[in-house]
Amino acid sequence: PHIPYRPLQRSDEEVLQRSREYYELMAKRRTVRSFSTEPIPQEVLNNIVRTAGTSPSGAHTEPWTFIVVQDQETKTAIRSIVEEEEDLNYTKRMSRQWVTDLKPFATTATKPYLSDAPALILVFRQTHSWREDGRKRMHYYSEISVAIAAGILLAAIQYCGLVALTSTPLNCNSRLRDLLSRPVNERLELLLPVGRPHSDATVPDITRKPLEEIMIKV
Amino acid sequence: PHIPYRPLQRSDEEVLQRSREYYELMAKRRTVRSFSTEPIPQEVLNNIVRTAGTSPSGAHTEPWTFIVVQDQETKTAIRSIVEEEEDLNYTKRMSRQWVTDLKPFATTATKPYLSDAPALILVFRQTHSWREDGRKRMHYYSEISVAIAAGILLAAIQYCGLVALTSTPLNCNSRLRDLLSRPVNERLELLLPVGRPHSDATVPDITRKPLEEIMIKV
Ligand SMILES: Cc1cc2nc3c(=O)[nH]c(=O)nc-3n(C[C@H](O)[C@H](O)[C@H](O)COP(=O)(O)O)c2cc1C
Ligand SMILES: Cc1cc2nc3c(=O)[nH]c(=O)nc-3n(C[C@H](O)[C@H](O)[C@H](O)COP(=O)(O)O)c2cc1C
Repeated sequence: PHIPYRPLQRSDEEVLQRSREYYELMAKRRTVRSFSTEPIPQEVLNNIVRTAGTSPSGAHTEPWTFIVVQDQETKTAIRSIVEEEEDLNYTKRMSRQWVTDLKPFATTATKPYLSDAPALILVFRQTHSWREDGRKRMHYYSEISVAIAAGILLAAIQYCGLVALTSTPLNCNSRLRDLLSRPVNERLELLLPVGRPHSDATVPDITRKPLEEIMIKV
Repeated sequence: PHIPYRPLQRSDEEVLQRSREYYELMAKRRTVRSFSTEPIPQEVLNNIVRTAGTSPSGAHTEPWTFIVVQDQETKTAIRSIVEEEEDLNYTKRMSRQWVTDLKPFATTATKPYLSDAPALILVFRQTHSWREDGRKRMHYYSEISVAIAAGILLAAIQYCGLVALTSTPLNCNSRLRDLLSRPVNERLELLLPVGRPHSDATVPDITRKPLEEIMIKV
């Protein structure tokens, strides 16, 4: 069954004003790699995850599970796993070119933010689920749907005034899935430390491509 | 070189308030499949694409190109290509199960929104680029980076009061790439009609998973 869609009607002037305001706010987002340990109110974490859950998804499969880790011991265990695997990535698994490409970000195998940030959000993708009759239900376009939801999660984090580090822990899927007792139909896509920046936090002095380079008008 | 990061400092109370407000706003987003032809001011399109361009990306590769089509002839040509391919998808290429799964959305091979919506945003992913010395520069994690940017684009569209249809035109990549003269290192990931809903627009009467189903606290 379909129902009428009655959104807020905004005038052209209001739409224009809001598109400027939102750009200004989002343009201030930066990936932060040094966090204050100050906790985040639980309701804020609930609200940002709820917001991510409003995302569109292929055939409305909602193929995401957000694991929100605040327990210090679990954060420390996650940090150990990621650091061990990253050490192998940097020294053995990544090409020399890749390691060179990452130099400007000063990323290393040591990741204190994984135990400092008050919350780690691990974004898992459900490759499939089960129908009521027990048959497999494929989640079409689950990769892109989950990443869109992560974009909306990052937008919510920025909107409310917190910061995050977007990361894709390479080769950590099975160990983190086991640690967190996730089922085999779930795969780790992203690991996002969330919180407030450390008072000494710095960010790489990079610029973004100008509009002419990313937009073509037809 | 790194520079200090000095974001807006918001109090816990303000963060909480904004996390609620943003959830309320984003929860009203729906995928709309019937558009008003009313044009969107060019600056609004510029601002939402600029906002998408603030997204994080693996090693800051910014691997996206947004083609914004307002020209009526080009929209009509895009519609023809997508409808032809979709007709083949529904009748020949998709499994019976997939076609059944899509029934509730009443999607068909006929897509008037592709010529009605005032703008179509085609999101292309750059698989690689070239360094100054002419060597290939791989874009690590380009799929996930581009989809995150699309999530931020959808957030901007919702924030300013417009609507979109998120779609992944199956098997249309090479024909649309040719039509729009995109280079071979670009792949079409998403096609988003953007505008205002038609006054008669309806949406499927679906619900979203509750927080307990998508979030696990550790
Ligand atoms: C990756 C992706 C592909 C989609 N493809 C289509 C599509 O081809 N046609 C369509 O009508 N809707 C498409 N949708 C929209 C979903 O059907 C829609 O998001 C879902 O039913 C939930 O509804 P809502 O967005 O109104 O919350 C797609 C969504 C995503 C995220
Ligand atoms: C898919 C993806 C993976 C990323 N992986 C890492 C990572 O492992 N470590 C890290 O420090 N930053 C990571 N980043 C952050 C990028 O380096 C960062 O977004 C980019 O340099 C642009 O900086 P900005 O986010 O401050 O605008 C990742 C970003 C994305 C989108």
